[in-house]
Amino acid sequence: MITKILVPTDGSKTAQKAGAYAVNLAKQLNASIIVISVMDKRLLANRIMPVGRSQPSVAESIEDYQQEAAKRYAGEIKKLCEKRSIRSKTVIKSGHPVEEIVKEAEKSKADLIIMGSHGRSAIKSAILGSVTFGVIHKDTKVPVLVVRK
Amino acid sequence: MITKILVPTDGSKTAQKAGAYAVNLAKQLNASIIVISVMDKRLLANRIMPVGRSQPSVAESIEDYQQEAAKRYAGEIKKLCEKRSIRSKTVIKSGHPVEEIVKEAEKSKADLIIMGSHGRSAIKSAILGSVTFGVIHKDTKVPVLVVRK
Repeated sequence: MITKILVPTDGSKTAQKAGAYAVNLAKQLNASIIVISVMDKRLLANRIMPVGRSQPSVAESIEDYQQEAAKRYAGEIKKLCEKRSIRSKTVIKSGHPVEEIVKEAEKSKADLIIMGSHGRSAIKSAILGSVTFGVIHKDTKVPVLVVRK
Repeated sequence: MITKILVPTDGSKTAQKAGAYAVNLAKQLNASIIVISVMDKRLLANRIMPVGRSQPSVAESIEDYQQEAAKRYAGEIKKLCEKRSIRSKTVIKSGHPVEEIVKEAEKSKADLIIMGSHGRSAIKSAILGSVTFGVIHKDTKVPVLVVRK
């Protein structure tokens, strides 16, 4: 029985498509949805700091921006859930997307992860984005449903 | 709406697990199931023929064996469907498993492919078997749900 579906989003078009797919499936199954959006710490670590600005302040403003974006992305799917009267909650995390998604799936005892084939950082020619590839290849017991772009 | 689920099987333990998962989901969704088992032509082409036997007769007996096995594998999942009163049919194909699975998904207008992470030919240490990897990376519109071993 599928009762809890985890839906990762980075606000990309394919993540939104996967979100809509998950909402439809949850409706059919009478399941609840957990939306997760991960602030990618790697982006912060690799950012080149402009000369003349102190690194902490730049890092903070990037982090603020990431957090605001993550909340907005998760909120878009939560809104879809509310429209269809599906129980849902949002989770915002900071770290490596693959690690955080799998950790949340196990912690929340999700029966299924539904995600898009491509995220924001995907190379257009690649058939699978790096985060989806990572989650599928991760050694966890939770099944993964990949929605194509 | 998910109304038709394609379930590829090569008789492996993970394929059976994916089959049971698909049957449960189909029951919840009131969907039908198409079970596909592909006789892998590559195995036949690469087979080393023993000296002293004519190649056609050996090829035929391997093909007979493959066909009998494919029917048995598909039949196991069809039986599960019948037990749960789920509409189902079986399809036996010959060729490259990835190509045949994707072709059947498109031909039969399946809404979802449910398959195991590892098939019979998978290297134990690999996180994903080659057929599942191939289907996920194939450029098709049909979503894929991967059930772990």
